Amino acid sequence: MNKTHFLHGFLNPKSVAFYGANNKGNSLAAIQIMNLIKSGYDGIIYPIHLKLDSVMGFKAYKSILDLPQVPDLVVIVLAAKIVPQIFKECGEKGVKRIILISGGFRELTGDYENSLTDEIKDIANQYDMRFIGPNCLGVFNNWFGENNAFNTAIWENITKGNFSIASQSGTLSSHIWFDPDSLDLGLSKSISVGNEANIDIVDCLEYYKNDDHTKVIGLYIEELKRGKRFIELVREITTQKPILAIYVGGSKAGNRALQSHTGSLAGDIRIFDGVFKETGIIKTDFIQEFLDVAMILSRGILPKSNRIGIITNSGGPGAMAANNAEKKGLFVPELSESLQEKLKEVLPSNGSSRNPVDCAFDMNLPYFYVELPDILMKSGEIDAIVQYGVVGFQDVLDDYLKNDRIAPYAEFQNQSAEVIDILTQKLILPTLENSKKYSIPILYVNPMSFTSPWSIRLRKNGAILFQLWDRPINALAKVCEYVAFKNKIINRE
Amino acid sequence: MNKTHFLHGFLNPKSVAFYGANNKGNSLAAIQIMNLIKSGYDGIIYPIHLKLDSVMGFKAYKSILDLPQVPDLVVIVLAAKIVPQIFKECGEKGVKRIILISGGFRELTGDYENSLTDEIKDIANQYDMRFIGPNCLGVFNNWFGENNAFNTAIWENITKGNFSIASQSGTLSSHIWFDPDSLDLGLSKSISVGNEANIDIVDCLEYYKNDDHTKVIGLYIEELKRGKRFIELVREITTQKPILAIYVGGSKAGNRALQSHTGSLAGDIRIFDGVFKETGIIKTDFIQEFLDVAMILSRGILPKSNRIGIITNSGGPGAMAANNAEKKGLFVPELSESLQEKLKEVLPSNGSSRNPVDCAFDMNLPYFYVELPDILMKSGEIDAIVQYGVVGFQDVLDDYLKNDRIAPYAEFQNQSAEVIDILTQKLILPTLENSKKYSIPILYVNPMSFTSPWSIRLRKNGAILFQLWDRPINALAKVCEYVAFKNKIINRE
Repeated sequence: MNKTHFLHGFLNPKSVAFYGANNKGNSLAAIQIMNLIKSGYDGIIYPIHLKLDSVMGFKAYKSILDLPQVPDLVVIVLAAKIVPQIFKECGEKGVKRIILISGGFRELTGDYENSLTDEIKDIANQYDMRFIGPNCLGVFNNWFGENNAFNTAIWENITKGNFSIASQSGTLSSHIWFDPDSLDLGLSKSISVGNEANIDIVDCLEYYKNDDHTKVIGLYIEELKRGKRFIELVREITTQKPILAIYVGGSKAGNRALQSHTGSLAGDIRIFDGVFKETGIIKTDFIQEFLDVAMILSRGILPKSNRIGIITNSGGPGAMAANNAEKKGLFVPELSESLQEKLKEVLPSNGSSRNPVDCAFDMNLPYFYVELPDILMKSGEIDAIVQYGVVGFQDVLDDYLKNDRIAPYAEFQNQSAEVIDILTQKLILPTLENSKKYSIPILYVNPMSFTSPWSIRLRKNGAILFQLWDRPINALAKVCEYVAFKNKIINRE
Repeated sequence: MNKTHFLHGFLNPKSVAFYGANNKGNSLAAIQIMNLIKSGYDGIIYPIHLKLDSVMGFKAYKSILDLPQVPDLVVIVLAAKIVPQIFKECGEKGVKRIILISGGFRELTGDYENSLTDEIKDIANQYDMRFIGPNCLGVFNNWFGENNAFNTAIWENITKGNFSIASQSGTLSSHIWFDPDSLDLGLSKSISVGNEANIDIVDCLEYYKNDDHTKVIGLYIEELKRGKRFIELVREITTQKPILAIYVGGSKAGNRALQSHTGSLAGDIRIFDGVFKETGIIKTDFIQEFLDVAMILSRGILPKSNRIGIITNSGGPGAMAANNAEKKGLFVPELSESLQEKLKEVLPSNGSSRNPVDCAFDMNLPYFYVELPDILMKSGEIDAIVQYGVVGFQDVLDDYLKNDRIAPYAEFQNQSAEVIDILTQKLILPTLENSKKYSIPILYVNPMSFTSPWSIRLRKNGAILFQLWDRPINALAKVCEYVAFKNKIINRE
């Protein structure tokens, strides 16, 4: 944790006051409190409401001045026009930290000399308060406690992890986690910065830079208010912690959208592209790719370079993966003769040892999951592996056995769930150990449902799993761009 | 149906003989028979086996010569070296159609003057037999009967549809359907052509061209044996039925993979690109995009041009979608003043009417699902819609209500499943009617799980749904490229 940075208090408050919450389950402020409850927050919650005696089971207060203590944090979800008055009351109480969820500031009016924004900035300065927002969704700190989180932003409970987000979009900071069962990406912290009237992405970067729980950083950027400081800072960070960023802007429609979203004036896409490239920020336009790259990076196993080994039990996906890999700047080397000889010893006669390594549907499992990757990883000839065809045979079988015209006749080596649990471990863990030892990430592909029994088992044992073969290749290409940047910097030093 | 074409018999056999099947549930030939059973095939199955008396519950025969009739189709899954002998026996029996699943022909040896392939081709010619393969996975005819299918290729039962595939990859012809619950793409027919020793993709195209159950065609191509005929044919087809294709080749690794896969010699990527462009074939490198584009096309509602309206309740996804749309060649027009006035009458004051049309989290459902799309569709200013944020509020609610620290306090308008079923219809059906009437496809995005209760309801009512906003934009761009081609041809005529 980075306790000395001022954002620490925003993410670790022992008490929070809420303006705007009532008991109606579909109001935004109520959702914020429900998320706090759901995330197991064990600090004190003070709802402030003119009429209600209690909100979501917590005693409500008429005014912040009535609270028995100065809350560590205040969250405001009220109409914009009364916010200055609330800010003043907070200042009088001695509050130092505010999250201003409310929208309706510059993004509404297009008024860049927005008097309302200026007014609240002035009040904050006057009382020495810092605030996140306006027009944001709040924060998520997954490392608030051992078994809980501090969460005003995200509607789901997320696995603890090392990926932290700073975002000018509330959706990007939160709703991309709406389907946690399909996302093997643990979250550390997420900060929705909104219009950045007082606290910006640069502040978040300063905080994440020295935060032990943050190993990978994701940004969603519509504009940069402190470009120079941003560049200085990311230059310091990217050699230590990868940063990936979505920058929206550059198209006419994109720029128009930005104006009505956070009210930002779009930058020049060429300047952003240049800065990202020079500082080693991994850029993507696609949210799915953003998540995929983050997932690979957050496992902490980086390839040394861009030589990809492809293992497959089906020619088509192998060929497509190889083709797309090279189009994306990865290298799929033909393997050395001696390595091919080694592979030929274990491959079936109709397989291919050239890379893609095609075992032609020979589904001896230990050989497919352990031996082939082992030979490739030890060879020194490849830096990452994509493996297609890790299908769940018992799942297929279970499906057939449901049919009473098949079940009585087919002889299957039917296995119990427990036996398969142990089998999965035996198949996955040695390869993941090798992966770590040789720093060679391995990305698996199973065309069955991502939440099929076999896929869930693979994922539970730590496999990086995809359902089709496009996404792992595309994401790996981005990871390797970052690796190339890092190698260049290291060689320069 | 296209009953006059010779492929008709391959897809509609009343009797099938199987070489190579036993009762072991994990052998390929057994899987073929199990798939026939699972798909409800009601023709006659004749397993041929030297030792077994019955296979999968069917009486087995020692030789094809013992069968009580000439089977309409023979499927062979045996070692390559004995295939010539089997072919001869089939010829003697009077068989006219063979699917040769077995691999181990030219793709194994790299021997392009492959004597084994020549041998079986000669035998087939001698007996006037046609055969699919070798090195293939068979066929799937989803329109075999009203309530069943003829299926040797695919491991799942798939919704009947109008999308037909011809593929030089078995995986592409079958395993991409491995998760049918997540794929709203009905299948018509799928033919895995393998090495194309006797029947090729061009034959399949000829068949699909006049097949009433085929409205959209998907191809996976590693090489074209009859390039000239292919070009003639697709030129005739693409103005009537869209063709989308994955061509693998062009990269060094891709070409190497092809040689060991189907043994094909890669073509020149520039020639393929040129042919595809000139003939209006929609080209993609990505299997996910292949499926997405097919899904949109198979609904039969084509945009008139490339002007995209974006409706969103969140600024970030709207901005990203707009930005990517323009990068992909779509046009996200700023709406006319009069249209913006109409939108402003219904949008909240902090919304935006410019396009993206941002309703700023005002979640009045009839307004969001019906009124906004209605205004846009009737305007004549856009050709397709992408709508972000069709989230399932009851799903969120149900999740909160599981928490006993929330349930007693939060006041929700809790709705029963039945009420929500009716609500979904009311929200989706009028818009889909408009979509048809104005020929404006609408693509919905819900960041929750694709199989969440709300998402399932939307899909059941016919919505084209995605979980994130990258894929609909990318797929729509491909669809609009096809529309541009078609418009050009029509204008020329």
